[in-house]
Amino acid sequence: MSNDIHFQEDAASITDPKGFYAAASHADVRKKKDHRLDTGLLFSRPPCSAAGVFTKNAVKAAPVLQCQRILKLDTPVHGIVVNSGNANACTGEQGKKDAIAMQKTAEEACLAPADSFFVCSTGRIGDLLPIDSIKEAISSSGEAIRNGATVGSGFAQSILTSDTKPKTCTASFRFDGNQVTVSGVAKGAGMIQPNMATMLAFITTDIQADSSQLQSVLSEVVQSTFNAITVDGDMSTNDTVLVLANGQSRCSLNAASEVLFKDALFRVCDSLADKVVSDGECITKVVELLIEGAASVKDAESIARAIGNSLLVKTSWYGNDPNWGRLMDALGYAEAQIDQEIIDISYEDTAVLVKGTPVPTNKPVWKRIVSEPRFSIKINMNLGEGGFRLRTTDLTEGYVNFNMSE
Amino acid sequence: MSNDIHFQEDAASITDPKGFYAAASHADVRKKKDHRLDTGLLFSRPPCSAAGVFTKNAVKAAPVLQCQRILKLDTPVHGIVVNSGNANACTGEQGKKDAIAMQKTAEEACLAPADSFFVCSTGRIGDLLPIDSIKEAISSSGEAIRNGATVGSGFAQSILTSDTKPKTCTASFRFDGNQVTVSGVAKGAGMIQPNMATMLAFITTDIQADSSQLQSVLSEVVQSTFNAITVDGDMSTNDTVLVLANGQSRCSLNAASEVLFKDALFRVCDSLADKVVSDGECITKVVELLIEGAASVKDAESIARAIGNSLLVKTSWYGNDPNWGRLMDALGYAEAQIDQEIIDISYEDTAVLVKGTPVPTNKPVWKRIVSEPRFSIKINMNLGEGGFRLRTTDLTEGYVNFNMSE
Repeated sequence: MSNDIHFQEDAASITDPKGFYAAASHADVRKKKDHRLDTGLLFSRPPCSAAGVFTKNAVKAAPVLQCQRILKLDTPVHGIVVNSGNANACTGEQGKKDAIAMQKTAEEACLAPADSFFVCSTGRIGDLLPIDSIKEAISSSGEAIRNGATVGSGFAQSILTSDTKPKTCTASFRFDGNQVTVSGVAKGAGMIQPNMATMLAFITTDIQADSSQLQSVLSEVVQSTFNAITVDGDMSTNDTVLVLANGQSRCSLNAASEVLFKDALFRVCDSLADKVVSDGECITKVVELLIEGAASVKDAESIARAIGNSLLVKTSWYGNDPNWGRLMDALGYAEAQIDQEIIDISYEDTAVLVKGTPVPTNKPVWKRIVSEPRFSIKINMNLGEGGFRLRTTDLTEGYVNFNMSE
Repeated sequence: MSNDIHFQEDAASITDPKGFYAAASHADVRKKKDHRLDTGLLFSRPPCSAAGVFTKNAVKAAPVLQCQRILKLDTPVHGIVVNSGNANACTGEQGKKDAIAMQKTAEEACLAPADSFFVCSTGRIGDLLPIDSIKEAISSSGEAIRNGATVGSGFAQSILTSDTKPKTCTASFRFDGNQVTVSGVAKGAGMIQPNMATMLAFITTDIQADSSQLQSVLSEVVQSTFNAITVDGDMSTNDTVLVLANGQSRCSLNAASEVLFKDALFRVCDSLADKVVSDGECITKVVELLIEGAASVKDAESIARAIGNSLLVKTSWYGNDPNWGRLMDALGYAEAQIDQEIIDISYEDTAVLVKGTPVPTNKPVWKRIVSEPRFSIKINMNLGEGGFRLRTTDLTEGYVNFNMSE
């Protein structure tokens, strides 16, 4: 990572890059009359290029299909309209109409074409949106934006579901005399094993880039950040990562500036991905699985996901139990090439298995490490060059309790 | 299923087929001095043909490797020696020696070759067996068998780990004037998503069959019974199903008798598989997922397993919440062919989705069904002929609590 990147989490805002505005309102999507911000609008008057990655789930919410259609148009984009509390997924024809209605309301509020607004929803699957109140909320946010709303904190709040806090960060760098800023917000908490993205993450930047350049950098960065986390192994119908670039920094994305821009984008995505995992539903631990020496990267990823999603592994972490037998069991069913007699495992840097043979004298140290709220487990398969890093969590009674009710 | 099969669960015993003896002893494998039966011995003086299916986990316990070696010898078999409380998995060279030592003790106790005894272990992974006390326990069971032990209840107890009760059943039929009996015991509870078998299931029969005939019938039956259940999605290092056939019924397995024998074996395996799921760790519900109309059987199985292992689906069942959106989310990431707009879903026979459109007026009925301790969910993909039945469970706080401690 470059020292030339200035990185900031406190007081970061999706409106940090030049020319972006954001506002949020209450549409009572959850029908709880709790004044919670649940509808957001992001806007750039200068047109943006855009890139996105989406859930690989074959069941896609109406807004996801709409975002994919907009990206294909490859026409200038002006913003994002979003609600939380209802995913607008499995809602049939009416769901599609409602997604379009959200775009049209943004069009009227900001005087930019409906299809220049991405539309996103997150929350419960299978219920229709309360579209009238959402339209009112969008109009009200539009009015705030026309009055120059540049405080992104409400927008960051409005996209949350079971998250306990908003997730924002900003990276910036100077290139050729110009300041370039990249900023992001995300929401996560449950149904988190993105294959293409976390549930929702929006990134703004004032670099100048065409859509295909932006897409290529985003796809690469997402692979090792949002696509390398798991909370519960469930991939959502609504996962979406969007980047909007409005060119206001006067810096262009080219071979020379790409190193710094990719680094800044990585810092933003990596930080947001970490915040999503750390705020997973009722978790008590974040565990970094570092797989190396696998026969291929694909094998390394399969091994990491088998371990990171194993209920028996996750519950043992919750109990501060360094039960490495469960790690071995899980990697054994990963459908990867494995020779159980040459595997090395360590908690942090303390050996557990050396070439398949346990080192039980280290057990007191293992127990201390596994009792920490954050630790890493390193596994060397000693078979090849494949590596993968996965951030995962423990599984608690709280998770079960939280998800057993509607 | 044939009415010609007599099926029995109460008072069934692994020694019901002619010529089988069984006994069990306490070796204090768990070091709790609790007098619990933890070491069992099964014996047939007449030599048996045998068949087996084993875990597909690439990490295999020493006894699993030993059983596979014995099957390949294709020499007559006389019994099974087994311990619970310790899986003898990930135990290196000493683990292999200990498995052989168990066989040799059975040889001395029963005066049959060491390699005529299958050897099995189940329990915690990564610790060495207390082999001396296990050898003593085997010798003591051998003495009981020499004295004619034909009560299988101790043996059925001795293989259990976190199970709350033993699992036994017996099926019998008459063919050509002879009575043929098939009997089985199993243990399950946790680390249950067998790909080849449940953790341990042993089946005895007095039919006369060669090993290859037996293997072919067993492999077919296991596919739709033991391989079609999941509790927690974790596949064990020790899963083993063994059948021993000693020919004492004077009935031979041939084209004419195979229909009845396969039916009897299916009844035994299906009943044991159901008992394993029903006794899953801290579960409160058994759910039968009936997938039909998938593009292929493989697709149907992927869909069933994605749903049956989804934490969000399982926790919603625990909460009596007919959250069909989570079913749709899970089937969407099953990597099967899917058209979300033509799917039918029902709880028992009450429609949830008809051709992708929800039927919310039925919600009170869904809630009543999902509140039952057993119910089925039928999903028709309306794409082809592929079907699969998976028995699964809910996920409770009790499961997490049970597995968080050593």
